[in-house]
Amino acid sequence: MNIILLSGGSGKRLWPLSNDVRSKQFIPIFETEAGNYESMVQRVYRQIRKADPDAEVTIATARSQVSAICHQLGGEVSISVEPCRRDTFPAISLTAAYLKDVRGISEEEAVLICPVDPYVEMDYFEALKKMEKQVYKNEANLVLLGIEPAYPSEKYGYIIPENAKDISLVSRFQEKPDKKRAEKYIREGALWNGGVFACRLGYLLKRAHQFMEFTDYQELFDKYSMLERISFDYRVVEQESRIQVMRFSGRWKDLGTWNTLTEAMDKSCIGDARMNEECENVHIINELDIPILAMGLQGVVISASPQGVLVSDKEQSSYIKPFVDGIDRQTMFAEKSWGSYRVLNVGENSLTIKVTLNPGHRMNYHSHKNRNEVWVAISGKGRTVVDGMEQVICPGDVVTMEAGCRHTVIADRNLQLQLVEIQLGKEISVHDKQKYSMEY
Amino acid sequence: MNIILLSGGSGKRLWPLSNDVRSKQFIPIFETEAGNYESMVQRVYRQIRKADPDAEVTIATARSQVSAICHQLGGEVSISVEPCRRDTFPAISLTAAYLKDVRGISEEEAVLICPVDPYVEMDYFEALKKMEKQVYKNEANLVLLGIEPAYPSEKYGYIIPENAKDISLVSRFQEKPDKKRAEKYIREGALWNGGVFACRLGYLLKRAHQFMEFTDYQELFDKYSMLERISFDYRVVEQESRIQVMRFSGRWKDLGTWNTLTEAMDKSCIGDARMNEECENVHIINELDIPILAMGLQGVVISASPQGVLVSDKEQSSYIKPFVDGIDRQTMFAEKSWGSYRVLNVGENSLTIKVTLNPGHRMNYHSHKNRNEVWVAISGKGRTVVDGMEQVICPGDVVTMEAGCRHTVIADRNLQLQLVEIQLGKEISVHDKQKYSMEY
Repeated sequence: MNIILLSGGSGKRLWPLSNDVRSKQFIPIFETEAGNYESMVQRVYRQIRKADPDAEVTIATARSQVSAICHQLGGEVSISVEPCRRDTFPAISLTAAYLKDVRGISEEEAVLICPVDPYVEMDYFEALKKMEKQVYKNEANLVLLGIEPAYPSEKYGYIIPENAKDISLVSRFQEKPDKKRAEKYIREGALWNGGVFACRLGYLLKRAHQFMEFTDYQELFDKYSMLERISFDYRVVEQESRIQVMRFSGRWKDLGTWNTLTEAMDKSCIGDARMNEECENVHIINELDIPILAMGLQGVVISASPQGVLVSDKEQSSYIKPFVDGIDRQTMFAEKSWGSYRVLNVGENSLTIKVTLNPGHRMNYHSHKNRNEVWVAISGKGRTVVDGMEQVICPGDVVTMEAGCRHTVIADRNLQLQLVEIQLGKEISVHDKQKYSMEY
Repeated sequence: MNIILLSGGSGKRLWPLSNDVRSKQFIPIFETEAGNYESMVQRVYRQIRKADPDAEVTIATARSQVSAICHQLGGEVSISVEPCRRDTFPAISLTAAYLKDVRGISEEEAVLICPVDPYVEMDYFEALKKMEKQVYKNEANLVLLGIEPAYPSEKYGYIIPENAKDISLVSRFQEKPDKKRAEKYIREGALWNGGVFACRLGYLLKRAHQFMEFTDYQELFDKYSMLERISFDYRVVEQESRIQVMRFSGRWKDLGTWNTLTEAMDKSCIGDARMNEECENVHIINELDIPILAMGLQGVVISASPQGVLVSDKEQSSYIKPFVDGIDRQTMFAEKSWGSYRVLNVGENSLTIKVTLNPGHRMNYHSHKNRNEVWVAISGKGRTVVDGMEQVICPGDVVTMEAGCRHTVIADRNLQLQLVEIQLGKEISVHDKQKYSMEY
């Protein structure tokens, strides 16, 4: 099974647990059997591996999400990076070219394209397998997944099938309707459009070449920023006449707001949180390292991260976007391919952060124009390289780096390394970074 | 006017803004005309100075509060330090001895003893002045302040006066009653016991010598831990037959819970906090440096500090004590005589804190047995002394201190100095501190 997972989205609706570099699909919120917490990305990836251990999974995403994906799924996963955001038709086309030219997949093979963040059970992946089989039957160019509607939602597009069979040709599409129309469509047998498409790889490439001029993956990648912003639905799906829909009646949830997300939580508290018995229908997700205490609340979600604290009536939680727009967006925590960091203190001309390097991982060899830095190791072991000079670093060791000086740090193969990094300068910015290749 | 302010109390009811070293009277919560925030201690002290610029104010308190008092009121205020907690009779006796032996006040002078934390207006201090005059009339040994009850409270003791005049002899006292009895007392003309006593200094010393053997202040101080725990009310007030009560009908509030405290707030938000229009009767006090957003809440208080986050229905907020007992009590922030500190990160064998030294202030010259330390200056200017060696410290400068090494830091006369201090060791404790005299 070849699966393309589309990983997009901003983080505003699930602030403060999401931020500019952590979209909602990376929030660790679902309890695993081992008692840890996994994110939507990790959950879906685990489910795919369970449904088909040999699945070829490719994640189509923006550059800003690559670190988080590597951190959460490990370096093994195949990623097709969009140089910038250009909606789903260019994104899917680029990934199709990537599958053919980089991964060497035959145009005859079936490909499944799915969002990365549906909250589903294993029957969903069984349905994907059926869709793949359906592609090989050559009854249609494109097969969609139609979700049996749970209620007349105004949030989804609707697919009207020709008949009520498990697999049917599509009669027509309807955009997100108001509630009354949604009720009418449902009476006509309409299904929610789950955003899942199955077809042959060659079909994707044919459509890509039809609307964009390019010879191969690299060329499409290079001209990506010049491509028209247009969705796969508009450009391809709604123009296709040989199109079928497969009916799906299993659990399918879009966890886009705090209200829906907390419904999927197994426990009412994650992190250091406690509440008294007078609390009803209260969820707390605390990523801060200080305790949260809730007393006598009803129907409230509390979520906290180094980015901020939200306390919201669950119904109201879907309206937070404009308020979050008004809040300063300095990124206070992030997952990186090599580990993670979190801001401890924002000073006028200083920034103090905690850096965690995973065992065996390293930062890029880099320098900053406008700031000096100091590293103080607080746990673990590793090596630093500063202007070519290599040194072992242990807890209590201090490394000072002037602006312009090239530096990196590498964690011991078997030990996580933690540093306090103090940045000093008048113009501290994440963009002030020059990377160098490194032979150490 | 000689005033003894009794400053006691633990911080549990107003967690997380109070902690083991910050009692509720030190929380900056009342907006001043200048737009800053002052604490109950600062407010009462300012009001006393306004009522009587020449007032001799002495604060009777525990050692643990001395730093906060110096930080909030400046070094000028006179403090009588209790070596340990021994209830109000020993505390008042010790302070009386302090006034006579250390401050040289005559036994003939009147003394007013008040709690440090009533929420009152200027008329309260006019009442104190009248009490002082009443003492000099020699109609009684002791004059009390009786607050006209606003409702049949179960939280206060009651004073039953002989008549309804402004000043009356006391008929009897009643301990905290249930509501029904409180109603009965009020029908009989009872007043709340405001915990304010006025008498001559000599009277306090006479009673002290009657029950405790000592010659002077120093002797009482030295044997303080051996004294019986007993309140001034039990030991003195309720035994006194020549006792009057002065009626007070002005504003008098005991701001002991979040519910009552927020009633006294001028604005609904302090700190980086915002709420949508659907919020009603919501108060946010945010001492964290990350934003808090409230959506669609009713009758809720949110308070946050480096100690933790409380989100409570206002009525329920008076029941937090047992929950706070269950929360780890490591002190995460504190005011010191020289400035303040706040914990940024708690590691397994490290502690990272931000230290702020006020202009011209210095730490004690000290060492630690079980930890190394690193200072990195992040703003301001100052000097460090490490094992006798003095050095200027500016932003970016790093000072490393091995366990056992003696050290201090002194802020420039005109500039606040901020440091990140990283403590490293297996047994990090605030008690691991050896102080030295210092001639720098």
